[in-house]
Amino acid sequence: MDKAVIGKRKIFHTLLSIEETLSKLEQLGLLKPLGIEEVGLENAYGRVLAEDIYSPIDYPPFDRSEVDGYAVSIKSIEGADELHPKKLKVVGRVSIGEAPDITIVNGVAAAIDTGAVVPKGADGIVMEEHTEHIALDEVVVYKSIAPGENISFAGSDVALGELVLRKGTRLMYREIGVLAALGIGHVKVFKKPRVAVVSIGNELMKPGLALSLGKIYDSNGYAVTAFLKQHGFDVKYCGILPDDEEIVYSELARLSSFYDVIVTSGGTSAGEEDVVYRVFERLGTLLVHGLKVKPGKPTVIALSKDGRILFGLPGFPFSALSIAVLLLSRILEKLEGFESRKQVIHALTTFRIRKDIGKAWFVPVVLSNVGGRLYAILLQTSSGSVSSLLRADGIAILQEGRDYIEEGEEVEVVSFSNELKEVVIIGSHDALLPMLLTKLGIMDRVSLGFVGSYRGLQLLKKGYIDVSPIHLLDPISGEYNVPFIEKDNELRNKAILIRGYRRRLVLAFRKGNPKNIKGFEDLLRPDIRFINRNKGSGTRIYIDKVLEDMAKKRGQSLAEIMRSINGYWYEVSTHTGVAAAIAQGRADAGVCTEYSAILYKLDYIPLTWEYYDFLVNIQSLSKNAVDKFIEGLRNSSIRQLVNSFAGYEVPAEMGSKLCC
Amino acid sequence: MDKAVIGKRKIFHTLLSIEETLSKLEQLGLLKPLGIEEVGLENAYGRVLAEDIYSPIDYPPFDRSEVDGYAVSIKSIEGADELHPKKLKVVGRVSIGEAPDITIVNGVAAAIDTGAVVPKGADGIVMEEHTEHIALDEVVVYKSIAPGENISFAGSDVALGELVLRKGTRLMYREIGVLAALGIGHVKVFKKPRVAVVSIGNELMKPGLALSLGKIYDSNGYAVTAFLKQHGFDVKYCGILPDDEEIVYSELARLSSFYDVIVTSGGTSAGEEDVVYRVFERLGTLLVHGLKVKPGKPTVIALSKDGRILFGLPGFPFSALSIAVLLLSRILEKLEGFESRKQVIHALTTFRIRKDIGKAWFVPVVLSNVGGRLYAILLQTSSGSVSSLLRADGIAILQEGRDYIEEGEEVEVVSFSNELKEVVIIGSHDALLPMLLTKLGIMDRVSLGFVGSYRGLQLLKKGYIDVSPIHLLDPISGEYNVPFIEKDNELRNKAILIRGYRRRLVLAFRKGNPKNIKGFEDLLRPDIRFINRNKGSGTRIYIDKVLEDMAKKRGQSLAEIMRSINGYWYEVSTHTGVAAAIAQGRADAGVCTEYSAILYKLDYIPLTWEYYDFLVNIQSLSKNAVDKFIEGLRNSSIRQLVNSFAGYEVPAEMGSKLCC
Repeated sequence: MDKAVIGKRKIFHTLLSIEETLSKLEQLGLLKPLGIEEVGLENAYGRVLAEDIYSPIDYPPFDRSEVDGYAVSIKSIEGADELHPKKLKVVGRVSIGEAPDITIVNGVAAAIDTGAVVPKGADGIVMEEHTEHIALDEVVVYKSIAPGENISFAGSDVALGELVLRKGTRLMYREIGVLAALGIGHVKVFKKPRVAVVSIGNELMKPGLALSLGKIYDSNGYAVTAFLKQHGFDVKYCGILPDDEEIVYSELARLSSFYDVIVTSGGTSAGEEDVVYRVFERLGTLLVHGLKVKPGKPTVIALSKDGRILFGLPGFPFSALSIAVLLLSRILEKLEGFESRKQVIHALTTFRIRKDIGKAWFVPVVLSNVGGRLYAILLQTSSGSVSSLLRADGIAILQEGRDYIEEGEEVEVVSFSNELKEVVIIGSHDALLPMLLTKLGIMDRVSLGFVGSYRGLQLLKKGYIDVSPIHLLDPISGEYNVPFIEKDNELRNKAILIRGYRRRLVLAFRKGNPKNIKGFEDLLRPDIRFINRNKGSGTRIYIDKVLEDMAKKRGQSLAEIMRSINGYWYEVSTHTGVAAAIAQGRADAGVCTEYSAILYKLDYIPLTWEYYDFLVNIQSLSKNAVDKFIEGLRNSSIRQLVNSFAGYEVPAEMGSKLCC
Repeated sequence: MDKAVIGKRKIFHTLLSIEETLSKLEQLGLLKPLGIEEVGLENAYGRVLAEDIYSPIDYPPFDRSEVDGYAVSIKSIEGADELHPKKLKVVGRVSIGEAPDITIVNGVAAAIDTGAVVPKGADGIVMEEHTEHIALDEVVVYKSIAPGENISFAGSDVALGELVLRKGTRLMYREIGVLAALGIGHVKVFKKPRVAVVSIGNELMKPGLALSLGKIYDSNGYAVTAFLKQHGFDVKYCGILPDDEEIVYSELARLSSFYDVIVTSGGTSAGEEDVVYRVFERLGTLLVHGLKVKPGKPTVIALSKDGRILFGLPGFPFSALSIAVLLLSRILEKLEGFESRKQVIHALTTFRIRKDIGKAWFVPVVLSNVGGRLYAILLQTSSGSVSSLLRADGIAILQEGRDYIEEGEEVEVVSFSNELKEVVIIGSHDALLPMLLTKLGIMDRVSLGFVGSYRGLQLLKKGYIDVSPIHLLDPISGEYNVPFIEKDNELRNKAILIRGYRRRLVLAFRKGNPKNIKGFEDLLRPDIRFINRNKGSGTRIYIDKVLEDMAKKRGQSLAEIMRSINGYWYEVSTHTGVAAAIAQGRADAGVCTEYSAILYKLDYIPLTWEYYDFLVNIQSLSKNAVDKFIEGLRNSSIRQLVNSFAGYEVPAEMGSKLCC
């Protein structure tokens, strides 16, 4: 694991796993709660219990009526039914909150409210709807009841002395409700650790300022602070520090007199400018210097001389948040007396992946919930990505000690949020689709991924997702989608194809056509840089078909044509990605939807109209949001919306089933 | 739907469903956001965006190196490998945060840090581990790379002008991180609604005070306030009011000048004392008066004359929280500009249930996650229960319009918390088991339910749960568990039986044996009240076997014996439940574990030693907590713990596999 020192670059010593790190800190006695305090129940929300709670009362505290009706001795209404009603004398009423002074004997009843005390002698409550109040003091009963019917006995829910909540429980709303119901007005809780967050790096700037070349905005400081807030910790963001050992040293030394834990991000990788591990070493003892995980290897943990925990997160956003979620929060929970654990759900992988055996891999996944199963769908991103933070539903943990993970294996996923999206739509990109979903009021229930028609189709075929938007040109018939789906036996009885809308593809270039592009032939010019779409996208299939025709015409092979196009291998995965690259001069030409070209103020040559249809998993038809979506395509306001955008057309059959 | 007026009891008018209620309020224009304000990013956590956010920059903002290494022109290292390394001249270094003034041409390289700007002319970065720095200005490269390798291109993650976050998004840590990364320092958010919570009822007392007969502690006020806090609303608990129309009227009128929404609980059912609907009517216009749901029917919603929303929750804890979770929170979300929705997960039912077709039913369920599937397991409780709040993982919604739900059907479940328990253990009750799980540090990862050996076995057989503790006496062999499991073909290859511990059952009675109980024969005495265990529990099977033997001896039928025992039908589901009932005088005798009898200071006659073993789903063996549990049973500190309790014994083979 060790690597050579180059210049000032540092050595990673023995790398530890997440669990080894926790054990090491535990063994050193560093993960103990910081103290105990007593709080009133109104201030106990979110705190961690420092004592076991035994019920001081029976619950319910008395034999309680569960309904509005009449308290009776069941013997007096034995055999009662619609044909043989029994008449009882009403001797009074027990209202809620009252201590009754009535005794029920054979032939008498007392009116009673839901929640009121069952009077002495009564051994059942007849519901009001099975009675008729015929006179001020007479009721007729149309139904016999069993002993104890509609009575909730004292202590039947929680018995006096029963252990109700354990030390180490975090008091959320349900726990608060139970403590209140049992009359517990004060509880002992653990002290909260005070946490400071600082960001380190010469490249970092505060959001809101203007950016100069080479700089980026500090996102970890804000994201980690918000993450810790979301988990109820007492946390303060303390700003950005430069990669300057002395400045970092003196600021961390200062913070360590106010905070129990100091969390840094950045400045921990093996680059020459790293300062964190040197400062941590000067402030105390280095405990962990590198983790056996990817991403997140350059994590540093130390104990300061004054007993504070120093925690250095890596700099890339996904890396920093993964380590914050999987390790830092667990350490803080232990300091708060909360029995820390990985909060995982088990999902089935939809991918096969090779990995290094010596590390756990953390990969961003979308979680899909189809047919009562949970699937983890891999997002292809770099750990420097910020958009993946929004697109992923959680982090799948691919274990250390495995050099591959099979498709269909069960893996642990740590979810980012407290909800699963109802519907997962993955397939071909279209800029209008999110607007449609928003208009239909279901955007927030949808996880939307763009991986191209072909990969979307594969995911849907295996039942992993709910809907896949596709635009696949069948080269034989020249038709879109339908022939593709109809001849696919694997889709039989698994999916239906719903007609979507038409949209126009264009060959786009900068406003005014400065490079004088007349058609695909110009892509062969050495001064033109093309931007391509990702393999498996419908647009890529279209492009390759055009290039193949061109190759034939020129008597060349397709491979030759590909090699001659400058930028053929430069791929992006969305229409707007193509348009943005051209608008910003990173490329000169590319194929995208007319709508995206207009959005980015590009000029273009129209190419073709295509059908953008929706393949729907039949297992997903029971989902409300899927129903709303299909229904919505037939809706006149949605039809108007689609028509209102340049480059889109609404076919008459939009929203109807095409096959299969 | 309407029912007759009885005394002052009120009429439920047209009942609405949850969705109908939301539509009605929507149509009346009552669910609009309350206003917009601008906040700094450091104060934006938890708020709802009032504007669409388009990226003001490309991200990354420049072509960025993804690794530590050397920026090169890939042509200069074409064909490089271990046997054919290429030597390049190092012309400088680009550190993170710097604007480089280096140009890369053929044959030269620049050292570059992760995150630094790729210098002009470079079209790939060789990772440091594939190079050797042989002199101050010379590096040897052992690997060729593809165009763009290890470069993250400007705008490839998020393009300038790209729509990043939509109006109506709640800003949690990931969103905050992305806004920061894009340099957005301020955002427009919707104003938060101010919410007051009051509890109504003559029966209610503040937790901490001493309880008198007929009174209960107010739990809804605390639970609903904590629930709304947990969802980030600006909420204040304003105390308890009596069932007095004038007092409630004047207090709600006063609160309506400070709060946007006033939430009451209690005082809404059809009992005579109900005041909420009358006060709401006086304060403004009644909009909803009863819901087509169970529980939660007596929900009342009104609009006050000064434009405040008045929301009356029912009084029972599970009812109040169900309506708070399923309806109130969605209304408040809409007032906050958040596109409200049911946050549901889809799970498969493990039960068949009959219901009324005209109502949606909300039932508390435990969620089980086995083999990548999600199961909803029904908890049998009353809506007055508070313990069910702790035991349930969420609320399953059984739709209106259906008069039954089949086992294995997919239902929507609204989860109470943001985590699924890793392991579900359901079966026979034992008071020591939670202590063992706590000692092993896995209690918080476990959902523990006690329904008896037999029902646990059935759930496990169907693959719905992870572990089932059982103690089933085989009447033929007189042995526990093993013969039961071995002869069950449905369990073949589905489960293994792990040896647990031995425990003693006793016939318990109050200290000093005031009723002079000598054995089971005494249960036939009319002055003795027995407390039985639930059907399907191992203890019940044991009791029935003893009674059958007694019946034979006496020449009676088992049915006769059952009828003669006062309290035979009075069932509780735990050993501590039996012991508590005897201790409190609700019963005179019952069968429980020796340990429970001692815990409640009872005297007893020893009956038998039995094996309490663990049936484990083989699909669950991959779960860490299951592994820890089985491993733990072999652990000497756990063996000591079990041995230290009266009435328990550790067999030599504890923790080993018995079959199958």
